[in-house]
Amino acid sequence: MKLIKKSEEVVQVTGGWREEGQRIVLVPTMGWFHEGHLSLMRLARSLGTKIIVSLFVNPIQFGPREDLAAYPRDLDRDRRLAEQEGVDALFAPAVEEMFEPEFQTRVVLSKVSQGLCGAGRPGHFDGVATIVTKLFHLMVPHVAVFGEKDLQQLALIRRMVRDLNFQIEIVGHPIVREHDGLALSSRNSYLTEVERQTALCLSQAIGQARDTIRDSSNTASVVDLIAAATAYIEAHEGCQVDYVSIVDRWTLLPGTAIDQDSVMALAVKINGRVRLIDNGLLL
Amino acid sequence: MKLIKKSEEVVQVTGGWREEGQRIVLVPTMGWFHEGHLSLMRLARSLGTKIIVSLFVNPIQFGPREDLAAYPRDLDRDRRLAEQEGVDALFAPAVEEMFEPEFQTRVVLSKVSQGLCGAGRPGHFDGVATIVTKLFHLMVPHVAVFGEKDLQQLALIRRMVRDLNFQIEIVGHPIVREHDGLALSSRNSYLTEVERQTALCLSQAIGQARDTIRDSSNTASVVDLIAAATAYIEAHEGCQVDYVSIVDRWTLLPGTAIDQDSVMALAVKINGRVRLIDNGLLL
Repeated sequence: MKLIKKSEEVVQVTGGWREEGQRIVLVPTMGWFHEGHLSLMRLARSLGTKIIVSLFVNPIQFGPREDLAAYPRDLDRDRRLAEQEGVDALFAPAVEEMFEPEFQTRVVLSKVSQGLCGAGRPGHFDGVATIVTKLFHLMVPHVAVFGEKDLQQLALIRRMVRDLNFQIEIVGHPIVREHDGLALSSRNSYLTEVERQTALCLSQAIGQARDTIRDSSNTASVVDLIAAATAYIEAHEGCQVDYVSIVDRWTLLPGTAIDQDSVMALAVKINGRVRLIDNGLLL
Repeated sequence: MKLIKKSEEVVQVTGGWREEGQRIVLVPTMGWFHEGHLSLMRLARSLGTKIIVSLFVNPIQFGPREDLAAYPRDLDRDRRLAEQEGVDALFAPAVEEMFEPEFQTRVVLSKVSQGLCGAGRPGHFDGVATIVTKLFHLMVPHVAVFGEKDLQQLALIRRMVRDLNFQIEIVGHPIVREHDGLALSSRNSYLTEVERQTALCLSQAIGQARDTIRDSSNTASVVDLIAAATAYIEAHEGCQVDYVSIVDRWTLLPGTAIDQDSVMALAVKINGRVRLIDNGLLL
């Protein structure tokens, strides 16, 4: 596996692949790989002939009071894990390589970036759309794979690709969970053992909403489902709900009825310190 | 020459060219071709093996009180002219082809879009950066050619290409002028014969600044040069200065000394009806 740190080199390597007729699949990541990332790499493997993973903790998607400096990093470990998955190249640029001092461009989506995580993280999704655009231009992949755990990010990227006519196929990968339901996240490494148990309330709240809908033959109201999930989570010590919403998985618009595309999405802060998200289809 | 109206077709045609190893040059325009556009096409001819011209009056770069509806259009004439210049394809999509109802993405540059024309046309350069991004993604040209008359647009596109890592070479073409110095513009067709004579004061003001600098061995102050150009233009009946600035041609930042990159840029409204721009290097 090639480790690439320079933009020029990644352009050259992926350009060479394209000339050879390879089908290039990109997996954009911020590193600190867990089984979720490795599943994306395996899916990528099945979708093309050359797999490139980007590893970049993108400063412009972190707010001033967020965990940019603390975000976990271990390039050597990530490199070994990607290599074991048969990744062809890992692109891990320095911040200075991606952002010149004169950098001043943002890709901004006006609707899909509002609400949910966008409400509490102003500028976050502009930063995501911008870095993904840069990565797409450097590597010009045929396909890019994103996890469904970042529901809003995936909807944003899909919308951006349509709006800006990127000739790239976007593929989502279902959330990967621990045996007990906890959605995998690099931020789980911030949790103590006790907090990790508490964090199970996120996936449990979604499961309970799903049960309520089934048991009521889909007559339960959206308002009641949200209220029940919120109450359930906040009954857990140290859990503060940032949001619980039921939205369409594509547009992220809130719905009043539950259908095949309805997703419960939630964000919860644990002990005021670790912010976790989760989501799931309700039918 | 192919006339292409659909996005899918332009992707297919230019994609085919790329596979053949052609070097693709794009000339983005809003149509109503004059000698300035035709010069861009000739330059394009010398820079690649396949030339594609886009013709699209982009609604998102016009303000609500600007001349979108009145902007001159004549596809049949433009088509003949492009064909005579040996253009390989003309991409002329309908507005609905470029903007879906759910469209919500903008490419925004925070600095280079400020000042000069950006001050009086809020949102204009976001619209330009966004449509150029879409055209780049649809056609993936090796080179794109822009006129230097739109100084700020050219600086914006160059900055955007660097910031977003587009793998496209941007080439500027010098302003094309009438024998008497008037910079060619589609908006010149709005002028009466008398107004057309009056409009010569734009290029004359730049020429006079250049003379003053030479005669003073470059000791004239930027403030005085701007004041003299403003006074000269406003001495002409019906001329209202929107701005007269002396800026660096790359960063568009105002300078205090005149050097090889110093440009006088100006915008003037004639009889409150037609807004013209011009610019020129001062050394």
